[in-house]
Amino acid sequence: MVSLVLCVTLWLSVWHVQAAFNTADINSTIKNLLQHYKIPEARARFDRKPVFSRDPLAGNMEATSVFMSGVLEKYEELIGRMLEQLPTPTPHTAASDQLPASAAAAGGGEVATQLRYILKKVQLLKKHRYHEQEKFLRELRALKDIQMDNPVVQSKALGEFPLLYEKASSINVTMTSRRRRQARRNKTRPRA
Amino acid sequence: MVSLVLCVTLWLSVWHVQAAFNTADINSTIKNLLQHYKIPEARARFDRKPVFSRDPLAGNMEATSVFMSGVLEKYEELIGRMLEQLPTPTPHTAASDQLPASAAAAGGGEVATQLRYILKKVQLLKKHRYHEQEKFLRELRALKDIQMDNPVVQSKALGEFPLLYEKASSINVTMTSRRRRQARRNKTRPRA
Repeated sequence: MVSLVLCVTLWLSVWHVQAAFNTADINSTIKNLLQHYKIPEARARFDRKPVFSRDPLAGNMEATSVFMSGVLEKYEELIGRMLEQLPTPTPHTAASDQLPASAAAAGGGEVATQLRYILKKVQLLKKHRYHEQEKFLRELRALKDIQMDNPVVQSKALGEFPLLYEKASSINVTMTSRRRRQARRNKTRPRA
Repeated sequence: MVSLVLCVTLWLSVWHVQAAFNTADINSTIKNLLQHYKIPEARARFDRKPVFSRDPLAGNMEATSVFMSGVLEKYEELIGRMLEQLPTPTPHTAASDQLPASAAAAGGGEVATQLRYILKKVQLLKKHRYHEQEKFLRELRALKDIQMDNPVVQSKALGEFPLLYEKASSINVTMTSRRRRQARRNKTRPRA
């Protein structure tokens, strides 16, 4: 019974991801959108300065997922802005979110429909897969709102220091040891 | 020979952390500082609203280390501000950073010396252990500077979308499977 439930959950999960991520539809929608959002100088596209840095994607999975959460959030904001900037806003129907953008565009929706299709994909992925990371990003951003001139905050922060400093020291020691163990394991493992 | 190098590296690493993290000195320095930075209403200290949220510390180690990097950065800024706010700045000597604050304070430096001692501990830990995380935080913060009204940026971001969306989908699928495998492993492992 437990195995059956696990299998069904796994199947549903895979189905959900496949439903959310349809490469062909996304690629063709982006291709269509790029006909509208052209760069006058083609060189600018290939200047090796991407909008979203690739460096954090080479790190460990958890940190990468935090960065990707930020990227998805930015896409949501960016596409929202691009929709606002369109000269004649197309009326938004729930059905247009369900259709591949190419099909909807053929019916007349064009750029706005295609942008909304991409936006919906971003929002679905964020909602179903990046909930934890979004919470983490909120906590991280809250650090900048700490009222540093407030005497109560100064005093409380001092009181919290020993615990946090100990945690900060111990985490990194553990991470270093873990990396060392992993490197040793990789070294002793026979190569294929 | 390799083992010897590994042992020496490990010993140096442990020594370095121990040198940076001396609980007794830090605790006594904070205790002294709290004599100066008192909260008029004692209740405010125990209102269960810490300055630094503890929630991200319960997550996985890599994400926690990113948060701790932000916390250390904030402490550096906060203590810098507290030093600026002191009525009569004490001349700063390199020697005062090397001494436990209690000893230096006895010589007359008092609050400024104690704050500088804590500041130095934070800076050392950041420098030697949180280099990767600081770089990651910079990349994360750079997301907010993306010029969303720039047509070149809009076009390039659309062009980068398929790759990033695929990455965002695949990371999370892997993370979910990994958590499921880990949960199953924990379940089957005999308890002590």
